[in-house]
Amino acid sequence: MLARPRPRLQLTRSLRDHVAYRYLSSAPAITSGSGDVLGRRVDKKRLVILGSGWAGYPLARKVDKKHYDVTVISDSPNFNFTPLLASTSVGTLEFNNAVESVRALPHVNYHQAWVDRIDFASKTLACQPTLRYASRQPHQQDDALSYNTVKREELQDERLPVFTMEYDILVVAVGAYSATFGIPGVKENAHFLKNVNDARAIRARILECFEIAAMPGLSDEERKRVLSFVVVGGGPTGVEWAAELHDLVSSDIPRYYPSLVPLISITLYDVAPHILGNFDSSLQAYAEKKFARDNIRIRGRRTVEKVEPGWITIKEEGRIPFGLCVWSTGLAVNPLVAAIKEIPKGQKGATLLTDERLRALDASTDNKPMRDVYAIGDCAGVAGGPVLPATAQVAQQKALHLAKELNRAAKSGDAYQPVPFEFKNRGSLAYIGGWQALVDRTSAASGLKGGNAGRMAWLIWRSAYFTMSVSVRNKILIPTYWFLNWILGRDISRF
Amino acid sequence: MLARPRPRLQLTRSLRDHVAYRYLSSAPAITSGSGDVLGRRVDKKRLVILGSGWAGYPLARKVDKKHYDVTVISDSPNFNFTPLLASTSVGTLEFNNAVESVRALPHVNYHQAWVDRIDFASKTLACQPTLRYASRQPHQQDDALSYNTVKREELQDERLPVFTMEYDILVVAVGAYSATFGIPGVKENAHFLKNVNDARAIRARILECFEIAAMPGLSDEERKRVLSFVVVGGGPTGVEWAAELHDLVSSDIPRYYPSLVPLISITLYDVAPHILGNFDSSLQAYAEKKFARDNIRIRGRRTVEKVEPGWITIKEEGRIPFGLCVWSTGLAVNPLVAAIKEIPKGQKGATLLTDERLRALDASTDNKPMRDVYAIGDCAGVAGGPVLPATAQVAQQKALHLAKELNRAAKSGDAYQPVPFEFKNRGSLAYIGGWQALVDRTSAASGLKGGNAGRMAWLIWRSAYFTMSVSVRNKILIPTYWFLNWILGRDISRF
Repeated sequence: MLARPRPRLQLTRSLRDHVAYRYLSSAPAITSGSGDVLGRRVDKKRLVILGSGWAGYPLARKVDKKHYDVTVISDSPNFNFTPLLASTSVGTLEFNNAVESVRALPHVNYHQAWVDRIDFASKTLACQPTLRYASRQPHQQDDALSYNTVKREELQDERLPVFTMEYDILVVAVGAYSATFGIPGVKENAHFLKNVNDARAIRARILECFEIAAMPGLSDEERKRVLSFVVVGGGPTGVEWAAELHDLVSSDIPRYYPSLVPLISITLYDVAPHILGNFDSSLQAYAEKKFARDNIRIRGRRTVEKVEPGWITIKEEGRIPFGLCVWSTGLAVNPLVAAIKEIPKGQKGATLLTDERLRALDASTDNKPMRDVYAIGDCAGVAGGPVLPATAQVAQQKALHLAKELNRAAKSGDAYQPVPFEFKNRGSLAYIGGWQALVDRTSAASGLKGGNAGRMAWLIWRSAYFTMSVSVRNKILIPTYWFLNWILGRDISRF
Repeated sequence: MLARPRPRLQLTRSLRDHVAYRYLSSAPAITSGSGDVLGRRVDKKRLVILGSGWAGYPLARKVDKKHYDVTVISDSPNFNFTPLLASTSVGTLEFNNAVESVRALPHVNYHQAWVDRIDFASKTLACQPTLRYASRQPHQQDDALSYNTVKREELQDERLPVFTMEYDILVVAVGAYSATFGIPGVKENAHFLKNVNDARAIRARILECFEIAAMPGLSDEERKRVLSFVVVGGGPTGVEWAAELHDLVSSDIPRYYPSLVPLISITLYDVAPHILGNFDSSLQAYAEKKFARDNIRIRGRRTVEKVEPGWITIKEEGRIPFGLCVWSTGLAVNPLVAAIKEIPKGQKGATLLTDERLRALDASTDNKPMRDVYAIGDCAGVAGGPVLPATAQVAQQKALHLAKELNRAAKSGDAYQPVPFEFKNRGSLAYIGGWQALVDRTSAASGLKGGNAGRMAWLIWRSAYFTMSVSVRNKILIPTYWFLNWILGRDISRF
């Protein structure tokens, strides 16, 4: 046991604890998972949440821990604040601005693991920890090109043992994977933008491309190859990333690599004829005009055939070189969802079907809802209801609805009157570069309708995501970095 | 060519440029390496600096670019502010606080490469870029345990071609490697703390150890194994790291993992009987007493025999388990230094010998100084002078001295009167945890002499490193993070 802080520090520590624990509601979390809260044994339902994304994290945060013993199981230790990932991937914000630690949620247990199997009858989960017991650290000083060549089989005996966990209530919120449509080489040679690790890899690679292009002895043709930035997918993620990259390339790169600026290209490919398919057509046109002015090439109606290291093959154009390829073409089925046979599936088998109270249906009882299993987020859909897009907005609304219902059910007891979930379209936002954004509220459920593009929409975009940021730390850091990077330029250090 | 910002943005951009370029002296850098400054062809000496550490970076920063065409060649794109690495490795500060991008130095060319060979006769360098042409991105979503198993040989054809570079003046400031004394398994299983990548790996592993220990189904013995933190080396780096870890473990860990606190151990091993060998013995005793109170075990007179995944074998104690082992036992010869035959070497062949003007000696001319080759930092020593410690302080003083001399030589022309280098001991600093530090000025060249330990020394420690921080960005961010992390606790997100 390590010594506790000495008395002379008591004053400052008390102050800090006072501020941090009382007002910021970051009281100690419980790691035991035994319902042993603050030393007092209580009788609470064990609520297990699978996943820590836009569905799992808000639910874990908002559900009442006085009534539920909450455990999150996720192979990511973080909630990724996805709308800011594109910003972090070019240095408009820092990585920690787009991340919240699940472990830091007060009174929530967390285990970093996959769920291999759900036994709905005995209400138990088989979980495989995704951490290794011993660390292996490849040192880079001898050979910057060397890699950790440990084979997967060698790691088997370092894996932590599978553990089982019982639940009273289960919420499946495992989300979806990135779609590659079976196109060869995508996983190996393109970058996704789903989490902060992806964003970090992208930022390092962008800056690496410029360092490569600045090497002596290359032809301009070779420099152009490595400064060719390719985006596949014209949805909000692909568009926002292209826009953020253009911001970096027009504001900061000229300062550090002036002679390389004429060699840069940004190209966006999509199978659809237009970008931002879910937006109003006038806003689509606005974005396309803005991109054209910025020399971001939009290539619609294109089919990708394969991706090799440094080369992408487009059916209509042939083999195109790239320094970095970002891939964002929608979602694929989560393997856990594919493995669950007890719950009927929605379109293409990608979603678990629920009733309008978000309870998973039971295939063995003629699709009656299960009593204590819920499914929310990208991996879930309401049977018979409209097919909602797999967005953060839908996931979060379902999570907050479920938290509210679970809290009401616990408080009201037998008097509980369930309220069905109803999606309220709040509109869509997309950043398009140069302090401009799109706000599409043409299908909004309430408030001002219509679309908005430009500087005012950008203010709405920034305000919305600032408001949605979670921790006090990020409420302070996000505007700090916005300001610092505006006044000083983006940080181009790479590590 | 991408479109330049549109006129409507001119006002804000002008303001930013005004602030950033004029007052913060971050004017555009030149990438061509051709002496083509601001479009004007000038006749300047080509100064090539090998290395971007405490010797190379301050020299590149301070040498007058009106007189020298400066190129830095280093396999690290960053200057690592080493005294703050221990802080970043536990989250007292963020990683970018301890890093400055070499590329961001105004009017300095930079290439990320190793120097394979120096031809002193023709004044040319053969440089191997340490970047790969194509990117390969291992995606983690399918298997969090999978690794990039690309073999080194497969990368050969992706390497960028070797380039040659001519110099008029060469400064060798490549530093040293971490010593492992040939002990098996150190490189593979222990973590060094030499740069920001090391710090990031350590921080991730510390938090991972706690997540592992929080897994269900482990025995307390197994939890203790993974919560055993081992430091090898009782110099300032090892001591400061143990102190920072203890701060994390006593201030923040109890909030997130209260039940694990009694299972944590921190142990420091050294061959010497006491830690901080270069400090005054009263300060050593103070630090050892503080560590004893904090339950940081100091084990002197110990010999490490080998390091395996999760286990370290100490001759006197047997096989000890660990979750994380940090290794900081001094320096080993840089391979470039070992390869240079033209310059005589100091003790153990680890340093290139120079005269007191820091000019490298020429073995072929009976150790007369070379005209245009200098050696500074950990890889250099003054022949016949006192053997100075391989510290940041010595490296920086040599760099600033050389910058001054080069600037004077360029300005004075034939009237230049060389001034020999003289080391001015400014004293030593070490953080020992709990807002306490040591200041040892018993051998100081001027000013107050004597030692100081405790809170006031800590204030000196923080002020010194805040003052030494380089960029405006870090001058703002470092106090911001010190304050935020004091009031909110350290950020435990891990990615």
